[in-house]
Amino acid sequence: MKILGIDPGSRATGYGIIEVAKGRLNFVCCGVIRVAAKQSFPERLLEIHQGIAEVIEIHRPNRVAIEEVFMARNPSSALKLGHARGVLVLAAMQRKLPLAEYTPRQIKQAVAGYGNADKAQIQHMVKAILALAKSPSHDAADALAVAICHANHFQTGLVAG
Amino acid sequence: MKILGIDPGSRATGYGIIEVAKGRLNFVCCGVIRVAAKQSFPERLLEIHQGIAEVIEIHRPNRVAIEEVFMARNPSSALKLGHARGVLVLAAMQRKLPLAEYTPRQIKQAVAGYGNADKAQIQHMVKAILALAKSPSHDAADALAVAICHANHFQTGLVAG
Repeated sequence: MKILGIDPGSRATGYGIIEVAKGRLNFVCCGVIRVAAKQSFPERLLEIHQGIAEVIEIHRPNRVAIEEVFMARNPSSALKLGHARGVLVLAAMQRKLPLAEYTPRQIKQAVAGYGNADKAQIQHMVKAILALAKSPSHDAADALAVAICHANHFQTGLVAG
Repeated sequence: MKILGIDPGSRATGYGIIEVAKGRLNFVCCGVIRVAAKQSFPERLLEIHQGIAEVIEIHRPNRVAIEEVFMARNPSSALKLGHARGVLVLAAMQRKLPLAEYTPRQIKQAVAGYGNADKAQIQHMVKAILALAKSPSHDAADALAVAICHANHFQTGLVAG
């Protein structure tokens, strides 16, 4: 089973793929879809959608897990994030991939053992869990954390395989 | 010139197409993309995207105009609307169609002459401007109003043709 984890963002969207085999989690790849700030917002949406569609096309995950949008202090940035998340969710649906959604709290809990872990702790734990030689960037680590969170839910039987 | 106007919604998305020829606005078609409430939200996004892509495919507009999202009192519904609007904007960008965005105030101003016009007035004015035999539904009328607003901006030279 190959899981694609997504950390949505209107400027930078992290993605990370892990493989679950014999109860072990193996790192496949990770990265960040960055869109140029000089582009119009509609152009950015197109790029985000194309970027994640390409990742799906190349790596063929069986499942997708995406972070739920936290209610931002700034409603206008939550709205932008909603647009970006919309095209990311769409890309998974267009491929008929089962989609799971987790809150930031659930993801932190799954990876670091408590729901208020900070970004550096997530980075550290993702590196340790996947036995990586070096830490992925914040956005990529967050995406891998979403994928790990989803894998845990399978292993504990919380999600039907 | 054929303009597609879109009134985005996470449950019902209105669309309306008008043709601008020799300074006249002619009605082409209008309708509403309704998604079943029993569907999951990701499934709805897929249907909204497919629905508008089909309208574009069939009617081949040259330009698209879409309503900007007002800051809803309820942040969670603004977020849902953002997701829906994201996949609608994406559909226009995937077809390389020039996209314009107008606030509800600008649209009401263009169609009814003042920015606080209510839905019934918009319906009435859209029917009159396009010489329709009967009133379109609220959502379809709002979408036609966006298209009319965009056409006006062309005619007054506010948008480069």
